[in-house]
Amino acid sequence: MRRDLAEDITKRIRLCIGELNDILIFVRNNCSEGEFKAFRRGVGNVLSEIQDRLTDPIYREHPDVIPSDANYTPLPGPTLKDIAAKSRS
Amino acid sequence: MRRDLAEDITKRIRLCIGELNDILIFVRNNCSEGEFKAFRRGVGNVLSEIQDRLTDPIYREHPDVIPSDANYTPLPGPTLKDIAAKSRS
Repeated sequence: MRRDLAEDITKRIRLCIGELNDILIFVRNNCSEGEFKAFRRGVGNVLSEIQDRLTDPIYREHPDVIPSDANYTPLPGPTLKDIAAKSRS
Repeated sequence: MRRDLAEDITKRIRLCIGELNDILIFVRNNCSEGEFKAFRRGVGNVLSEIQDRLTDPIYREHPDVIPSDANYTPLPGPTLKDIAAKSRS
């Protein structure tokens, strides 16, 4: 994947992540504590999937598109290209 | 959860789902076919988590907030309130 595409795609995914976090804050401010905790657990699961399956595979190929203030390094694992190659074989 | 909150929250989540689908189309139009397929599988996993853990539990309590054009009925399962009650016990 080209670097500029990786940058665009991960930026858009980070906006989705930001929106999910905003929705979570809305739930905290408006629903019961129990509902908030249940919803927070759900959001956590969604964010794990986003990280494991969408952003980390791109970040591994283009670590320089990770925002410098994120202070984040993905764990070792496949790039999107590796996943694509594996599913062809 | 109040009906108006359920409506707001699920509407915002559907906007996130729409954006993930738009990103998927962008990947299809700009990346290799293999990368697109790998990314599509990832998006599918993310959408399953969103459905199972965020929207379906709310839709079960307030089925009337499901958009009428969605033609969708969640499978039987817990509401967010049920999940909250279960984790307290």
